[in-house]
Amino acid sequence: MPSATPSITGELALIEHIRRSFPSRHPAVALGIGDDCAILRPPRGHEILVTTDFSLEGRHFRRDLHPAASAGHRCLARGLSDLAAMGANPLAAFLSLAVPSSLLRARQGRLWVEGFLSGIRGLAGQHGTVLAGGDTSESPADLILADIVLVGSAPRGRALRRSTARPGDRIYVTGFLGGAHAELNALLASNRLARIAEHPNHPHFFPQPRLAAGSALVRRRIADAAIDLSDGLSTDLTHVCEASGVRAEIDAAALPLHPLATKLSPDEAMHAALHGGEDYELLFTAPAATRVPRSIAGVPITRIGSIHRASSPKPRITLLDLQGHRLPLSPGGWEHLTTR
Amino acid sequence: MPSATPSITGELALIEHIRRSFPSRHPAVALGIGDDCAILRPPRGHEILVTTDFSLEGRHFRRDLHPAASAGHRCLARGLSDLAAMGANPLAAFLSLAVPSSLLRARQGRLWVEGFLSGIRGLAGQHGTVLAGGDTSESPADLILADIVLVGSAPRGRALRRSTARPGDRIYVTGFLGGAHAELNALLASNRLARIAEHPNHPHFFPQPRLAAGSALVRRRIADAAIDLSDGLSTDLTHVCEASGVRAEIDAAALPLHPLATKLSPDEAMHAALHGGEDYELLFTAPAATRVPRSIAGVPITRIGSIHRASSPKPRITLLDLQGHRLPLSPGGWEHLTTR
Repeated sequence: MPSATPSITGELALIEHIRRSFPSRHPAVALGIGDDCAILRPPRGHEILVTTDFSLEGRHFRRDLHPAASAGHRCLARGLSDLAAMGANPLAAFLSLAVPSSLLRARQGRLWVEGFLSGIRGLAGQHGTVLAGGDTSESPADLILADIVLVGSAPRGRALRRSTARPGDRIYVTGFLGGAHAELNALLASNRLARIAEHPNHPHFFPQPRLAAGSALVRRRIADAAIDLSDGLSTDLTHVCEASGVRAEIDAAALPLHPLATKLSPDEAMHAALHGGEDYELLFTAPAATRVPRSIAGVPITRIGSIHRASSPKPRITLLDLQGHRLPLSPGGWEHLTTR
Repeated sequence: MPSATPSITGELALIEHIRRSFPSRHPAVALGIGDDCAILRPPRGHEILVTTDFSLEGRHFRRDLHPAASAGHRCLARGLSDLAAMGANPLAAFLSLAVPSSLLRARQGRLWVEGFLSGIRGLAGQHGTVLAGGDTSESPADLILADIVLVGSAPRGRALRRSTARPGDRIYVTGFLGGAHAELNALLASNRLARIAEHPNHPHFFPQPRLAAGSALVRRRIADAAIDLSDGLSTDLTHVCEASGVRAEIDAAALPLHPLATKLSPDEAMHAALHGGEDYELLFTAPAATRVPRSIAGVPITRIGSIHRASSPKPRITLLDLQGHRLPLSPGGWEHLTTR
């Protein structure tokens, strides 16, 4: 506990660096970085939505594979996508960041941290999100540890939930599926640092949280229920079914495969679309009578199945496969990167 | 990334365990654990306060020294104290928790995690705070990593800040100083696991965030500015002076020493009170004309100094020492536990 001065300097310098490098002006942020708490003033008639997501080196990104800006972008994207899933708009982000002191002592390490922050800043800027606070620490391991908090708002009582899908609903997804999984697999196969700049065509490195689409689903009263595809379609749709007490049928032929997934074998492509995580697209359900547009906020919308009354707890999902067989579909999503 | 099933089971089991073991009913929590975000509805006319604090094994606690319940209590206390410093009331807490998979596989490890959660639960229950969400992960190191988020509310425009101390203000602190430092030093000297149950007389192991006092300072319009004593009086008062553009004078003879500090040598006791961190008492300033009671919400209040116009940036603090000398006082707080 009586710790050395260099650590204090490093930590305070890091906070000061973060404070200087992020814009903090936002109508909802009455007080940003620099006091014991930030103060937020949500729009009148809105409720507050809060989500927190770890981005831990070795679990969620690897310093030897991911460009720093990608690790930062992905860190913020996870939180923003949770807001998008409920149709909320971001008010502010909070970043807890622990950095190994050795990293801050070396120029390359400081560049990495700056790259990580620039990845957050770039995506935050696209979605009008300010960084209003957080915490910093020296990392107790030789690993970068981040936890991102997003606070958003939605009109009171209107946020989309997982638990409100109804029998008869149709199931839709935004965008394309399996791209993040395909790109990740290529990265793991190459086993070297990717040199990739920010671009929406890199679904693993720079996923695009669907905030405008989620917000439109609320505003236009289209969706009954929604979730973001972070753990994979089979896992996330199971969450919806369990929370709503319903079952789902999915048509494999209808799944909108990402161009990167279509380059895989048909089996691998189907696996990527059904079980590949981190596409960060939205899955939502809407009543059969609702006219769902072909695209929302510039993102294509595809109908992939339907919601039914659950007569038994399993299977939660039935897949109509490409050969026309009906198969039970178990959750097969995975949980982030593993180091072993 | 394609990770093993046991990890998924462990993580989901941990979430389910947390969900079951925490009460989630709170008038402000419209939706708790289990969706993409929690939904909060702050009281009408209130603004939202948000703070995040790491509790990293090896930096903020040590598994070989701290009882699990103490580590959990301290984790939540850090966040609650930030709310107290601004006079806010907690609406909900969010816990991001990464646990080594080896820990969840061993009975003793699971007991440790349960003890950690019970420490959070105990303190949360005292302050009507519910756990409304968070994240879980397998830890990428053999270390427990936690990040606590507190969301609170205060009447709009009334939250106490660091930046609003005014020349002529008197400086006050709640409770007693130096106790946490004294108890920590004894722990480090013993270098073995403490066997201590939850009790307010253990200022290091079970600090008491001053929520009722902070809230009363706002309600009774007593304070101009406030901060919590997390980094130590000299450091935290410097923050107030810098943010407010003022300087401070402190009277060493007036400092309310904690009984554990009075057992130290006079020099060590003074060091603990001035620079020892983690007392989690409040420091506030109030106009000279304001009648400040001797105790607020059952906590004694002591006047320790005064705020003055700053003619030069340094020294920010002058100390009138026990011998009647005026000395410049530099920030000497420390930053958490260090493993080296």
